[in-house]
Amino acid sequence: MTDSLENQSQDNLENNLVQIQTLLAKMRLVEGLVHKQGGPRQDLVENLVHKQNLTELQRRVTVLHPADIAYILEALPLDERRQVWNLVDAEHNGEILLEVSDSVRESLIQDMDKAELLAAAESLDTDEIADIAADLPRDVIEELLTTLDAQKRAHLQSALAYPEDTVGALMDFEMVTIRADVTLEVALRYLRRLGELPDQLDKLFVVDRDDAIIGVLPLKRLLTTDPEVSVAAVMVEDFVKFHPEDEAHEASQAFERYDLVTAPVVDAQGRLIGRVTVDAVVDYIRESADADMLSMAGLKEEEDLFSTVWHAAKNRWLWLAVNLVTAFIASRVIGAFEGSIEKLAALAALMPIIAGIGGNSGNQTITLIIRGLALGHVTTANARRLVLKEISVAILNGLVWGSAVGVFAWLLYDKPALGGVMALAMLLNLLVAALAGIFIPMVLERMGRDPAIGSSVLLTFITDSMGFFIFLGLATVLLL
Amino acid sequence: MTDSLENQSQDNLENNLVQIQTLLAKMRLVEGLVHKQGGPRQDLVENLVHKQNLTELQRRVTVLHPADIAYILEALPLDERRQVWNLVDAEHNGEILLEVSDSVRESLIQDMDKAELLAAAESLDTDEIADIAADLPRDVIEELLTTLDAQKRAHLQSALAYPEDTVGALMDFEMVTIRADVTLEVALRYLRRLGELPDQLDKLFVVDRDDAIIGVLPLKRLLTTDPEVSVAAVMVEDFVKFHPEDEAHEASQAFERYDLVTAPVVDAQGRLIGRVTVDAVVDYIRESADADMLSMAGLKEEEDLFSTVWHAAKNRWLWLAVNLVTAFIASRVIGAFEGSIEKLAALAALMPIIAGIGGNSGNQTITLIIRGLALGHVTTANARRLVLKEISVAILNGLVWGSAVGVFAWLLYDKPALGGVMALAMLLNLLVAALAGIFIPMVLERMGRDPAIGSSVLLTFITDSMGFFIFLGLATVLLL
Repeated sequence: MTDSLENQSQDNLENNLVQIQTLLAKMRLVEGLVHKQGGPRQDLVENLVHKQNLTELQRRVTVLHPADIAYILEALPLDERRQVWNLVDAEHNGEILLEVSDSVRESLIQDMDKAELLAAAESLDTDEIADIAADLPRDVIEELLTTLDAQKRAHLQSALAYPEDTVGALMDFEMVTIRADVTLEVALRYLRRLGELPDQLDKLFVVDRDDAIIGVLPLKRLLTTDPEVSVAAVMVEDFVKFHPEDEAHEASQAFERYDLVTAPVVDAQGRLIGRVTVDAVVDYIRESADADMLSMAGLKEEEDLFSTVWHAAKNRWLWLAVNLVTAFIASRVIGAFEGSIEKLAALAALMPIIAGIGGNSGNQTITLIIRGLALGHVTTANARRLVLKEISVAILNGLVWGSAVGVFAWLLYDKPALGGVMALAMLLNLLVAALAGIFIPMVLERMGRDPAIGSSVLLTFITDSMGFFIFLGLATVLLL
Repeated sequence: MTDSLENQSQDNLENNLVQIQTLLAKMRLVEGLVHKQGGPRQDLVENLVHKQNLTELQRRVTVLHPADIAYILEALPLDERRQVWNLVDAEHNGEILLEVSDSVRESLIQDMDKAELLAAAESLDTDEIADIAADLPRDVIEELLTTLDAQKRAHLQSALAYPEDTVGALMDFEMVTIRADVTLEVALRYLRRLGELPDQLDKLFVVDRDDAIIGVLPLKRLLTTDPEVSVAAVMVEDFVKFHPEDEAHEASQAFERYDLVTAPVVDAQGRLIGRVTVDAVVDYIRESADADMLSMAGLKEEEDLFSTVWHAAKNRWLWLAVNLVTAFIASRVIGAFEGSIEKLAALAALMPIIAGIGGNSGNQTITLIIRGLALGHVTTANARRLVLKEISVAILNGLVWGSAVGVFAWLLYDKPALGGVMALAMLLNLLVAALAGIFIPMVLERMGRDPAIGSSVLLTFITDSMGFFIFLGLATVLLL
C-alpha cells in the first residue's frame, strides 16, 4: 500500500520542489568548491558535506508518491533531473515513467540501460506498457514480449495495435466478470476470494459462456440488494459500452455526459475485451486540451520546458517556416502598392490596423466554430444560420469600429476621404474574417482533418493579405 | 431508473439531432403553407400534418437522456430550441438546466415562469441548485430557501457562499459515514438498510463523535476483508482531503495525480462537510480548458453559438477595443517614420514580416510558460535557466530566419544593405519576443492575475511596436 504517501496538497508539493532545488543548489556549490580549491583536508570536509546533502536529498525523494516524483522531475532542468532520477527507488521507475510527459520520459529513458528499462516495464500492467512503448527501444519491447505469459502478450499486442486517439489505446484489462445465473451472495464470496480488486472498480461485468457481455452489476446494487437474488435479476442490461476503434474523444464525452466511472469495451461480436476507467479519461481530456493549446500556438509537439536549445528550435520551426511564407506573400501584396505608399506614406502607418483587427475578429469566430464542431453543435443543417449570425456581427462591428478608425484617420491626417477609405476597408475585412472564420474549420473538418490545427495560420494569412489588398486597393482607386 | 436511456454513442446522438432538425424544418414548411394558402379544407389537412410532426418530435425527445436533450438544445437556434424545450417532460427540466452551458441556460430560463423554475430547482440536489443559482431570478432563490428543510437550506447557503473556482463550489453533500468501532459486517448491513447509495460512491468516510473525519474505508476493502474485522482495523488513515476554500484547480490536479473517484472536504476543525466527486472534476477540467481557449481568443465569456447578434457583439467588444488601442499605438510608431517610408517604400512592404514572425515566436514561448506556470513547473529557482534557454532559442532562430528574410529582401530589392537590416531587425525582435514571452506571464502570475488572460494581446502589442521601431529605426540610421 502506498496510501500513506498519498496526502500531498499542491502547496506541499511546491514546497517539496523548492527544498529539493535548494539542496541541489547547495550540492552544486560544494562541487564547485572541491574543483576550485583542492588540498586533501579540504576535500575530505567537502566530500562529507556532499554525502550529507545526498542523503538528505534521497530521504526527501523516497517519501514521495511516484506521481509526485514525476512532477518534481518535470520541473527540474536536465542535469538536476538526472541527479534526482538516479536516487529514485528502482521499483518505482516504471510508474514514474508512466506519469511524466512524453518529452520528459524521453530524457529519462536516455539514462537507463536495457536491464533497467526491462525491469521498469515489467513492473507495469500491459496497458501501461503500451502507453510508454513508443518511447522504448525496439529490442526492449521484443524481449518484453518473450518474457510475458500468453495472455499478457496478447493484451500488449492488442493495446499496441490501436492508434493513439482510440478507445483501444485508453483501455485496460483489469475487469471483474461474473455469470448471470449466480446469486449476489455467490458474487460477494467470489470478490472476497479474489482478495485484491482493480482500482476504480464500480461495476462487475456480467458475461455469458462465450464471454459476450450481457449486463453490468453496479457495486451499489450488489451492496444494497438481498443476497439471495440472482445477478440476472438486478443487473443493468442497457449500459454504455465502447468498441476499441471508437474515437477516444467520443468516449470522453460519454463519460462526461453520463458521469461514468468505468465502461466495458467489446469487440464486433459483443465479446468483452477490456474496460475504460475515468482516470484514463481524465488524463486524456487534460492531455488533449494541452495538445490543442500547444498546436494552436504553433508548437509541433509538447515540449519539455528544459529541453535542449536544438530540440526546442526544431519543435518551433515548422510553424515559423509556414508563417514566413504567408508573411512573404502578404508582403508582396503590399509591394504591389509601393507606388501608392510613396505618394501617401500614411497608408503604411494605417494598414496594420485593418489587417490586425480583421485577424482578431476572425480568430474569435474561428474559436467558436472549432469548439462547436468538437461538441457536435455545428451541423450542415445550422451552418446557414451560423453564417448569417457571423455576417451580422461582422457588419455591426464593421460599422462601429470602422467609424472609430475612420474618424481617427480623418482627425490625424486631416483627410476626410482617407477616413472614409479606412472605415470601408475595415467593414470589408471584417466580413472576410467572418467568412474565413466559419469556412476554414468547416472545410478542414469535412476533409477529415483536425480543425484546430493550422486554422489560425490560414485565417491570419487571409485577413492580412486581404486587409492590405482591400485597404491599399481602395486607397489607390479612390484617393490617388 | 433512467439506465435504459443511457446508451447513446456520439454518432447516434448526432443522428438524433439531424432527425430532429429535419422534423423542425418540415414543421416550419407546413406552417409557412398554412399562412400562405388559407381555405378551411387546406387548413385542416395542414393542421393534421402539423400535429403528426409534433407527436413524432415529442416521441423522439421523450426517449432521450436529459444530458442528451441538453446536447440537442445547445445545437439548435433560439426559436427551434424554444420549440423543443416546450416539449420536454417537466420532470427533467432541472437536470437539463444543470447540463447545458451557462449561456444556453439563460436562454431557456427566459421562457420559464416562476412556478416552473421552482419546480425545476426543487427536483435537484442542493449542490446542483447552487450550480445554476447565478442564473435564477432572486425571488425564486428566496422562495426556494423557505421551502427547503433546515439541513438542505444550510447546505445550499454554504454552497452559494464559496466562489466559483473553489472546492466549496465543486462539492456535494451525498456522503455515507460510519463509525470506526463497528465491524465490517455492521457496515455492510448499514449500507443494505440505506437502500439507495449515492452515485460515484467508492469509499465510506469514517468519522468520530464530533463528525471529524479520521479515515476512509474504500469499498474495495469492505468487499474483500473478513466481515468480523472492525472498520478501525482496515480503514485508511492517510488520505487526500480538501478544504472548501482550496482552489478547484489544485483539487483537479490531485484527482488526476492520485486517480481519485471521491475525496472528503473538511472544515478548519477537520469536520466532514462534503465530498468532491470525479464527475464534478471532469466537468470542471473541461469547462476551464474551454474557458482558457475562449479567453485566449478574446471572447469575454462562453458564447451560445446561436446567441443574438447584439449579445455576440458585446461579448467580443472588450477585446476588439483593447486591440484597436494597441494597433493605434503601433500605427503611431510607423507614423514617426513616414519620412523614411516615403524615401523607400520597400520598408512598408517588409515591416510586417519582422512584426509577424516576432509575434508568432513570442506566442510559442508564452504558451509554454503559461502551461509551466499552471502545472507548477516554473519557479523562481528555475526562471534563470528558462530565460537562458529561450534567449538561446531566439538567437538560433534569429540567425536562421534572419538570414532567410535577409537574403529574400536582398534578392527582391537588389540592396544588400537592406537585407542586412532585415536580418538584424529579425534577430533583435525575436529576442524581444522571447523576453516578453517569459516575463509577461510571470509578472501577471506574481500580481495574482490569471496569466492566460491578456498575455497574448500584450505580447503582440510589444512585438508589433518594437518590431516596427527596430526595423524602421535601423533602416533610417543605416540606409537613408
